[in-house]
Amino acid sequence: MNYDQIFDQAIDRLHSEGRYRVFIDILRNKGAFPNARCFAGHNGPKPITVWCSNDYLTMGQHPKVVSAMEEALHDVGAGSGGTRNIGGNTHYHIELERELADLHGKEGALLFTSGYVSNDATLSTLAKLLPGCVVFSDALNHASMIAGIRNSGCEKKVWRHNDVEHLEELLAATDPNVPKLIAFESVYSMDGDVAPIHAICALADKYNAITYLDEVHAVGMYGKRGGGISERDEAADRITIIEGTLGKAFGVMGGYIATDTRIIDCIRSYAPGFIFTTSLSPVLVAGVLASVRHLKASSEERDGQQRAAAELKAMFRDAGLPVMDSVTHIVPLMVGDPVKAKKISDILLAEYGAYVQPINFPTVPRGTERLRFTPGPAHTEAMMRDLTDALVEIWDRLEMRIAA
Amino acid sequence: MNYDQIFDQAIDRLHSEGRYRVFIDILRNKGAFPNARCFAGHNGPKPITVWCSNDYLTMGQHPKVVSAMEEALHDVGAGSGGTRNIGGNTHYHIELERELADLHGKEGALLFTSGYVSNDATLSTLAKLLPGCVVFSDALNHASMIAGIRNSGCEKKVWRHNDVEHLEELLAATDPNVPKLIAFESVYSMDGDVAPIHAICALADKYNAITYLDEVHAVGMYGKRGGGISERDEAADRITIIEGTLGKAFGVMGGYIATDTRIIDCIRSYAPGFIFTTSLSPVLVAGVLASVRHLKASSEERDGQQRAAAELKAMFRDAGLPVMDSVTHIVPLMVGDPVKAKKISDILLAEYGAYVQPINFPTVPRGTERLRFTPGPAHTEAMMRDLTDALVEIWDRLEMRIAA
Ligand SMILES: Cc1ncc(COP(=O)(O)O)c(C=O)c1O
Ligand SMILES: Cc1ncc(COP(=O)(O)O)c(C=O)c1O
Repeated sequence: MNYDQIFDQAIDRLHSEGRYRVFIDILRNKGAFPNARCFAGHNGPKPITVWCSNDYLTMGQHPKVVSAMEEALHDVGAGSGGTRNIGGNTHYHIELERELADLHGKEGALLFTSGYVSNDATLSTLAKLLPGCVVFSDALNHASMIAGIRNSGCEKKVWRHNDVEHLEELLAATDPNVPKLIAFESVYSMDGDVAPIHAICALADKYNAITYLDEVHAVGMYGKRGGGISERDEAADRITIIEGTLGKAFGVMGGYIATDTRIIDCIRSYAPGFIFTTSLSPVLVAGVLASVRHLKASSEERDGQQRAAAELKAMFRDAGLPVMDSVTHIVPLMVGDPVKAKKISDILLAEYGAYVQPINFPTVPRGTERLRFTPGPAHTEAMMRDLTDALVEIWDRLEMRIAA
Repeated sequence: MNYDQIFDQAIDRLHSEGRYRVFIDILRNKGAFPNARCFAGHNGPKPITVWCSNDYLTMGQHPKVVSAMEEALHDVGAGSGGTRNIGGNTHYHIELERELADLHGKEGALLFTSGYVSNDATLSTLAKLLPGCVVFSDALNHASMIAGIRNSGCEKKVWRHNDVEHLEELLAATDPNVPKLIAFESVYSMDGDVAPIHAICALADKYNAITYLDEVHAVGMYGKRGGGISERDEAADRITIIEGTLGKAFGVMGGYIATDTRIIDCIRSYAPGFIFTTSLSPVLVAGVLASVRHLKASSEERDGQQRAAAELKAMFRDAGLPVMDSVTHIVPLMVGDPVKAKKISDILLAEYGAYVQPINFPTVPRGTERLRFTPGPAHTEAMMRDLTDALVEIWDRLEMRIAA
């Protein structure tokens, strides 16, 4: 048994497929985002513009968020010091759960250390609590939902992405007497398309299923108060469990679910991924509280983001770049090849100081490798113009097809 | 299919077994820990002393940690804004990984959002990468290791707690040609006992197994530089993978592994729980960096903790309280009944302002319910005296047996 050899082979596979990942070494400049400093391969840090952050609304540098975190840091210290049950439940956690419950119009909310953990812990536990449960999962669901469903040990039926007819077929073919859980996302973050929430809820009603909606790429950004697509579409009360992250539009870190009190009670009592871990640092929780409260009242950031996304899409389209259909703030450019995607990204960073990470398998299916831009309220028209010009030059240089 | 009824039954089971958990609503007082404020059931916050924090060395309020976090907050903002691969890799992360690798004398280290996630993600991925792997797991391993092993889908063989003879039996009975992974902890946090690391490593050598050691309750606290029991016992170089948390002795939040570069490369490339999640907030990472560096150079906190633990154990023993055998900083009092354990804890909080959480199933086996005290360098002799007197009074009141 040669362990080293097995590990080496696993790494070689990545190299040979052109998807070995090199992490870019950067520091963002608070107050000046999307500007940042890049450390890799240079003599000292070099200024860059970040185009692939999921701090979508730049709330990570918002003065209210920063000062709330500073205050908490000085009031209670760095960490919670324990699990939610043993020493690590703070007043901040309780307040934030109330705020998130209110955001989604639900009875309660429950915090997790990340959005990933909220999906994994909730789905695996929920499906286990429902004897014989069958989970209906959208084909493009995020890895964290897939993990949760797999870890539940339940039967899983995968429906074609956003295809409600296929979903109905699968529901109709399942024993009416077993519990059913439909799991899907609102905004799919690699394509930028949106689920037909009402149509899915109608099927849930018809077939007596409960629904689980991942709003990770929508909370803070859609709906009048940032309650996500389910708020915008007035569908929140039709969804059993809404899940979100605190690390993207809210700008900090952590995850949560919002749902009925009895489901909250079950998850917090039965989910190992919730129970057996140090709770979120109160410093983070205080920052999120300020962020959620701000975005409930202010639409300025949301409007700025939508404006920027529309502008960048139009520029790309006018320049003949292969911008993908997206009805949201996400602006993906299709490349279709992992090596080329990485090459374009490398040139952008080295020659143009523009940072956008190539998106390769397993994040997207093989053959659909892409660049994914997330312009926000702080990206200026001049930045977008520079970026578009750079891309056109690179597309030319690599002899890739320009549509126009 | 009545979903509400199923959830209600799940909650009823908890109530009927006396293990429905009520989270205590507190805020710690930075600079004055173990003092804190308790919100629950009072008119306004009431001062309490915390006896069950895992901020073991009170690093969560250390001036170096607090000022490092403040600086990072102002320099780069609240969150990382992305996964390690897409926008969320910062210079702080890279520096901390170097620091942790050095702490354990390993080639590299990898950060996770928590200790739980580091165990779950690493074990599930590692065992999957090794075809036909059999995992040998100590009977008292933590829920996060159990989750990782289960999620790997590998065969698991459980050896009796700290029983190397039983471990050898199981190893000897296993096909010599399959990969083998031995997973265990150094300090078992509910009993306070310690694993025989060298004896286990000797078996690993003999049977060509790799080893995975959870040092969550030891890093920062044992060894000359806080490298854990494996440093203290000079066994770190015999362990393949050392895992630790950043949320206990280091006082902040997060988790990590330290190991060979090639294993790091495999885990960071193949573990969904590492790849598909927003990376640790740079604010937390900066705080941990300061904490790890401080504890590498200073033994004052470690010495203070050991002194406090010895003192409290002696007081409990002298008072005839059923203190359990523990060779570490953990001071457990056996109660053996979930309802009584909760009752004692409630009286301590309400009448004496002392907060210690009862430890019930599933954290410990049924029938071994206990109170678990974690005195640290900031707990004074007067506090311990008050606590001991209170416990003796409560033991009397509840007509429980005093040994003396
Ligand atoms: C759809 C979706 N759900 C969940 C997550 C995980 O959230 P977090 O980053 O907070 O772990 C992500 C991305 O990270 C995501 O894209
Ligand atoms: C032995 C052990 N491993 C891992 C963990 C998880 O670490 P964290 O709290 O950082 O998630 C814990 C406790 O929380 C633990 O006791």
